[in-house]
Amino acid sequence: MKFTIKFSPIGKRVIESRPRLLLDMAREEGVGLKSLCGGKGKCGKCKVMVNPANEPTAVERKLFTQDEIDEGYRLACCTTIREDTQVYVPPSSITEEQKLQIWGKEVEVKPFPPVRKFFLELTKATLSDTRSDFQRIKEKLNRKYNVKVENADSKVLNIIGPTLRDSDWSITVIVKGSEIIGVEPGNRTKESLGIAIDLGTTKIAFYLVDLLTGESINIYGITNPQIAYGEDVLSRIHYAGNKITNLKKLKSEVLKSINLAIKKICRESKAKYRDILEATLVGNTVMHHIFLGLPVKQLGLAPFTMATNKSLEIKAREVGLEISPGGYFYFPPPIAGFVGSDHLAMLIASEIETKEGNLIAIDIGTNTEIALKTKEKIMSCSCASGPAFEGAHIKHGMRAASGAIERVSINSKSLTVKVSTIKDKSPVGICGSGILDAISEMLRTGIIDSSGKINSGYKGVRKIKRGKSFEFLLAKEGRREITITQQDVSEIQLAKGAIRTGIEILLEETGLKAQDIDGVIVAGAFGTYIDPLKAVRIGMFPEIDIGKFNQVGNAAGIGAKAILVSKKLRGQANQLARRVEYLELATHSNFFEHFTSAVRFPPTK
Amino acid sequence: MKFTIKFSPIGKRVIESRPRLLLDMAREEGVGLKSLCGGKGKCGKCKVMVNPANEPTAVERKLFTQDEIDEGYRLACCTTIREDTQVYVPPSSITEEQKLQIWGKEVEVKPFPPVRKFFLELTKATLSDTRSDFQRIKEKLNRKYNVKVENADSKVLNIIGPTLRDSDWSITVIVKGSEIIGVEPGNRTKESLGIAIDLGTTKIAFYLVDLLTGESINIYGITNPQIAYGEDVLSRIHYAGNKITNLKKLKSEVLKSINLAIKKICRESKAKYRDILEATLVGNTVMHHIFLGLPVKQLGLAPFTMATNKSLEIKAREVGLEISPGGYFYFPPPIAGFVGSDHLAMLIASEIETKEGNLIAIDIGTNTEIALKTKEKIMSCSCASGPAFEGAHIKHGMRAASGAIERVSINSKSLTVKVSTIKDKSPVGICGSGILDAISEMLRTGIIDSSGKINSGYKGVRKIKRGKSFEFLLAKEGRREITITQQDVSEIQLAKGAIRTGIEILLEETGLKAQDIDGVIVAGAFGTYIDPLKAVRIGMFPEIDIGKFNQVGNAAGIGAKAILVSKKLRGQANQLARRVEYLELATHSNFFEHFTSAVRFPPTK
Repeated sequence: MKFTIKFSPIGKRVIESRPRLLLDMAREEGVGLKSLCGGKGKCGKCKVMVNPANEPTAVERKLFTQDEIDEGYRLACCTTIREDTQVYVPPSSITEEQKLQIWGKEVEVKPFPPVRKFFLELTKATLSDTRSDFQRIKEKLNRKYNVKVENADSKVLNIIGPTLRDSDWSITVIVKGSEIIGVEPGNRTKESLGIAIDLGTTKIAFYLVDLLTGESINIYGITNPQIAYGEDVLSRIHYAGNKITNLKKLKSEVLKSINLAIKKICRESKAKYRDILEATLVGNTVMHHIFLGLPVKQLGLAPFTMATNKSLEIKAREVGLEISPGGYFYFPPPIAGFVGSDHLAMLIASEIETKEGNLIAIDIGTNTEIALKTKEKIMSCSCASGPAFEGAHIKHGMRAASGAIERVSINSKSLTVKVSTIKDKSPVGICGSGILDAISEMLRTGIIDSSGKINSGYKGVRKIKRGKSFEFLLAKEGRREITITQQDVSEIQLAKGAIRTGIEILLEETGLKAQDIDGVIVAGAFGTYIDPLKAVRIGMFPEIDIGKFNQVGNAAGIGAKAILVSKKLRGQANQLARRVEYLELATHSNFFEHFTSAVRFPPTK
Repeated sequence: MKFTIKFSPIGKRVIESRPRLLLDMAREEGVGLKSLCGGKGKCGKCKVMVNPANEPTAVERKLFTQDEIDEGYRLACCTTIREDTQVYVPPSSITEEQKLQIWGKEVEVKPFPPVRKFFLELTKATLSDTRSDFQRIKEKLNRKYNVKVENADSKVLNIIGPTLRDSDWSITVIVKGSEIIGVEPGNRTKESLGIAIDLGTTKIAFYLVDLLTGESINIYGITNPQIAYGEDVLSRIHYAGNKITNLKKLKSEVLKSINLAIKKICRESKAKYRDILEATLVGNTVMHHIFLGLPVKQLGLAPFTMATNKSLEIKAREVGLEISPGGYFYFPPPIAGFVGSDHLAMLIASEIETKEGNLIAIDIGTNTEIALKTKEKIMSCSCASGPAFEGAHIKHGMRAASGAIERVSINSKSLTVKVSTIKDKSPVGICGSGILDAISEMLRTGIIDSSGKINSGYKGVRKIKRGKSFEFLLAKEGRREITITQQDVSEIQLAKGAIRTGIEILLEETGLKAQDIDGVIVAGAFGTYIDPLKAVRIGMFPEIDIGKFNQVGNAAGIGAKAILVSKKLRGQANQLARRVEYLELATHSNFFEHFTSAVRFPPTK
């Protein structure tokens, strides 16, 4: 009997046919799991979460709390796997941080910060001038800077009095709109920090920003800890929709990680997290809803209605975010159930509204959002491209972690294969850009035909027969064989077919042809690593001149940053969110026609 | 050696010269302390807080938590008193609720509630109408009621989706300004509750109000639990200013009591506290600051500057008040360090601005606030009248609890005395209105002269010599003698002198004479119980026609209620707070001249 072990977050799957010690298996398969004591159950470093979990050993009982035991935490060196098992490797147990694509092409944003600081030297209160502390500050702000405030945050009111008296009546006042959101002793007007967060299903990216210049001080990425409760948005909806405590758990897990990450990024930058004056967060609608504790059940059922499509501005402390006590947290609006504020932020970062011509902007992921901008309008849709490009549903697929094959080239005559891996480690599996490369090369060299079938006719050791179908061998490392299977090819066909369908329907709705497109903005981690030429070759994109492609990296994060530093852009983003027309693909009359054509590969030239 | 035992909150003081069991003493002195087991240490009913506290007995250790032991909680039946001691009798140990004056003369207020409810029957979401739940509600509100909302409370967003789907898309939406602050299934537009709170140094009054009619559904009063930490505002400032945890303790104690009281008043009225949509609170500036966690140290030191003189509107949950999750808490502004929002509320309730003529409005307490309204302006001042009218600093003084002498008349020929007590119990002590009566009668019958000296010449058993001075015997009950001492007379002279000084300086500042005054509004518990004729006779008030006095009861509470139900009145109150000119008496050039004259009694006719 065979059983499958799935490692998250790296997305690696292993099929076994005999009971094996988890630590041994992880090492053999190249999963970077820590172990200091060499598997003696002493160091506790190889902590993982397994489901289903064995009865805990005495060592594990001693090492873990009852809550942890109940949640399935075990030591890999004490765990024998005998059946289908999910193994979650927490960040603390992983030898190397996953390759997190958080770089993004910077756009120049003129800072127009919604939070400003003012230095005031006040006259002391006397019996002939008994104005309240607030009144005294209010009048001086008006007189000196022509700034009108109406109220002060209730937590800040508590510290105004002592701060004034401890700093000899010279203070820095932090103002947002007509509210005083903070006071600091002395002159601190030169320091003004903000944080922009891109909350993805898999990764979370942080940008610590100087609000005065709009520049990033530090960039940081972590894995979304919710991965332990489901890899994609649908499994998160399912888990969170089951009961309210689950929703709260997902919310609190991600909040805890975000607070820790903010502290870490601040420590690295010699900043204090309490000095962060404002935060923004973008994400897909499910991430957005879960983070805010909004119900998500309805996002998983037709007609996929959001709780709200408004931007939100709330006190960070109301959400539990640990920044300045009076600071605000701004959430740009989601556009639709499957088109989130990350898509909106991407559109803002790519300045799609102000650019000339007909433009496509695309962010490839488990859900791929595509926008098409013409002279008249902007339409967006979401395609269920699935997780194949993130390495899931692919036999040897994995995320873009070290040891993942990311580039493949095949010699068309000898059919010899050259692969390169992330960090040049010996190959562990194959990640999204590697899969796209492999399929494209296999198509070019005739190993597969345009229906996707692996050609049984070609010769060489690379062809492996398993049961009735063939696999193509990309790399071999000891016992470990990394292959592309017929099933893998089909998965990629479905994925790229979904994306192409979205593009075709948008073109149809706007009356345009592929040659009318003046530019394609490709965003996101996967989108940045792919070779557009190969994406066109497998038909994921229509025939568009390669020079028109522009790979911009994590544009959602860059957009979140732009929205953080500019009040003006917030207004634009809100208008844009209302302007974007959401197109529901599933109910489009020509959906199946487009789809059946899009899953085929274009004929090789 | 003599020592003094002070019982709070009833304000009774007892002088002893030998060690005695606390329970015995309390019974003998008429302090209504519960005891079911008859002092055997079994029932635990005679729980009190003593300072300093004895080593706890084994019984007490078993009965109380360590925290309680540390705070000084003991059983009166296990405690022997040997030195000066403060004894706080918590409400649960008191046999009868203190007489809490919370009645107030109602004023008619046209409700103009800041919170409104709307019933909506919505169309269900479909794949061709995927508007977000918020958007759907927003558009319907606008179309059906012409009400424009911009956002929803973040906690309310969480329940909109499930509420809509559980109630077949028919819901009641609660709107404040442009915010949705609540949703309820079905049509609940006929129920709309609010709570107004008058937070006094000694007592807290609650008014559960129907926001649609403006009428009180229930009225309720409790003792301010902060009394255990000091009887007057200055001792609270001292305690809270000492360290931040003390301030937090005072805040949390009063908040806890308020939340409990609200639940109790709701239970009594068959209402749910979660259905209370809005709250207001008025109080003196120290109570206001402590409740909001604002620093109070500076309120105890010249120049007595407030942290803020603004009205505040914050989410009730931010403060910790347990009402509707999205509900707001409104705090009318304080006027000055010693003139609080309770004074402002009193001015609103007495409609002083719109009434004709020159009017005095006065609220007598430990601090007495006086406003004088003329055609041109409104001036307010605060007089340090001290706690004598609340029974403190008076040898046999006590609060207006049962057994307190509240009325006194003396036969001018026989000098026989008739007293009446609260609830007709045998006399325990004498409360404010009783003291005022007694002094006035003693003055009328020549027992004291206009300098305040007790006449050594008059005859009768009522005169008791103690040391070098005389006391006048009001009542005798077994061993217990209730007298007015020379010291008591002096205390009342200082108290009434302070009030009269305030009135005189206000008259001087406005260029008016007593005969120009068209009305005197007397508010507050003590002010409602006094006989104005007698107050004029001892010179507390100038010679003003008795017909011009209007005793209105707890006008601060009534004002808080009016402010609760009317958005318009909130605007008026804010304008009034800015309009009132605060007059600092202590620095007035003629203060001492007025004061030395005011402490004397007027010559008897």
